[in-house]
Amino acid sequence: MASANRRTDPVFLVENRDGASDFLIVCEHASNRFPDAFGDLGLSVAVRQAHVAWDPGALGLARALAARLDACLVSATVSRLIQDLNRPPQSESAMPARSEIHDIPGNAGLAPDERLRRTEAIYLPFHAALHAEIARRLARGRPTVMVTIHSFTPVYFGKPRAVEFGIIHDADPALARAVLASARTMTGLDSRLNEPYSAADGVTHMLRLQATPYGLANVMLELRNDLLLTPQDQAAIADRLAPVLRAARAEAPSRAGKPAEASA
Amino acid sequence: MASANRRTDPVFLVENRDGASDFLIVCEHASNRFPDAFGDLGLSVAVRQAHVAWDPGALGLARALAARLDACLVSATVSRLIQDLNRPPQSESAMPARSEIHDIPGNAGLAPDERLRRTEAIYLPFHAALHAEIARRLARGRPTVMVTIHSFTPVYFGKPRAVEFGIIHDADPALARAVLASARTMTGLDSRLNEPYSAADGVTHMLRLQATPYGLANVMLELRNDLLLTPQDQAAIADRLAPVLRAARAEAPSRAGKPAEASA
Repeated sequence: MASANRRTDPVFLVENRDGASDFLIVCEHASNRFPDAFGDLGLSVAVRQAHVAWDPGALGLARALAARLDACLVSATVSRLIQDLNRPPQSESAMPARSEIHDIPGNAGLAPDERLRRTEAIYLPFHAALHAEIARRLARGRPTVMVTIHSFTPVYFGKPRAVEFGIIHDADPALARAVLASARTMTGLDSRLNEPYSAADGVTHMLRLQATPYGLANVMLELRNDLLLTPQDQAAIADRLAPVLRAARAEAPSRAGKPAEASA
Repeated sequence: MASANRRTDPVFLVENRDGASDFLIVCEHASNRFPDAFGDLGLSVAVRQAHVAWDPGALGLARALAARLDACLVSATVSRLIQDLNRPPQSESAMPARSEIHDIPGNAGLAPDERLRRTEAIYLPFHAALHAEIARRLARGRPTVMVTIHSFTPVYFGKPRAVEFGIIHDADPALARAVLASARTMTGLDSRLNEPYSAADGVTHMLRLQATPYGLANVMLELRNDLLLTPQDQAAIADRLAPVLRAARAEAPSRAGKPAEASA
């Protein structure tokens, strides 16, 4: 457990730190765990297992991709309903009182002290750990490309979604566009840019906080979760996406390491 | 020393944490200290006191501004030549082998392990502490506006600079433009936007890493260091800039707290 290749913490897990790949995979909605310190937020077991609590199948896919690419994987181990690590801590949706069609009683009228407690217990250690993984790689001269793995529900507010594979970018669209092009030629998936969400929906905090400041090539991948129901499904999708990522990476190299320079 | 209003660390100092102001002042080039763990990089006393080692007068100005505004101040306590906190750690200028007209022997041919050691000892704790200050403020619902305080040399590569007050922005120019407008009407300083540097010169890592991901209004202020020679000079400039910042703040409110929203 204390192997340098793995780092465990109450709120995150770093696996395959020694992986040879330039890819760094992040899965911030990996878990629907509700630790005792935060309780179940008054939710039924059904809601705690639903997509509002986590991204079902995303961790399995992320691990399968990390294995195929020999990439480091950083994942969260706490439900997004306690704190969504892909939102700034002041955001209403960081600790939402309502998510899609579900009320979240334990998040209603949250006191500032409780927001602070969760932020200190979850948000800060997770993001500090991820910053550290990135900065250590860069200091050693390792190219780094950030890929975040998410899943989305096939039916949202009662409306079915046709898109199967969403590819979302923030300020730098290069890698996203390359992934889209490769996905369309190399997979049969209904692949679309900036669907079912885009940066305008506030879903790219992770990219803005962890990739953009370092000039890392980056992309957020969203798979429809009915494609990820079983470990076999997840492995099958990983088999299709690993070559897509390799091809896109070859086409859209990381800019990290070559920012413009100046001195005082 | 252990007061909650002050936080000390080997590489940073947080002062007036309880300050009532929305402004959060950062001074990352505050110090020309060369701790024993890193040595003097083979530099003469003269070079260690020159502007390449730090921003002379910037800390005095930052403290005088923090006092006038009742703002929290986060400053670094290690020379920028050991690690420039305003550069990504893979950047050549994060640990420059040459800065303006000076060779930096201790930074020549730096081994990856030494870059990593400095990054772990200096960059990561400084930025984790600043992220924590910001996230804690935001979680508690406190509006936050980031102002970084720098100074620049009046003569650069032998050429005199006329600009006295440089106002630099990154992706969000709103606060910088408001500061420029106020500075031009309220001070007699030769005030210019994106001089003597701009984001294109790679000098806005701090803003990109600490302000942009949270939607904080932000600006980087550069004062010509011959205006900051003595504590009296620094106080006089602070007397002129504090009202400028207050006026600009009123005109360009922080966007923090109101990012767009979405859920899975």
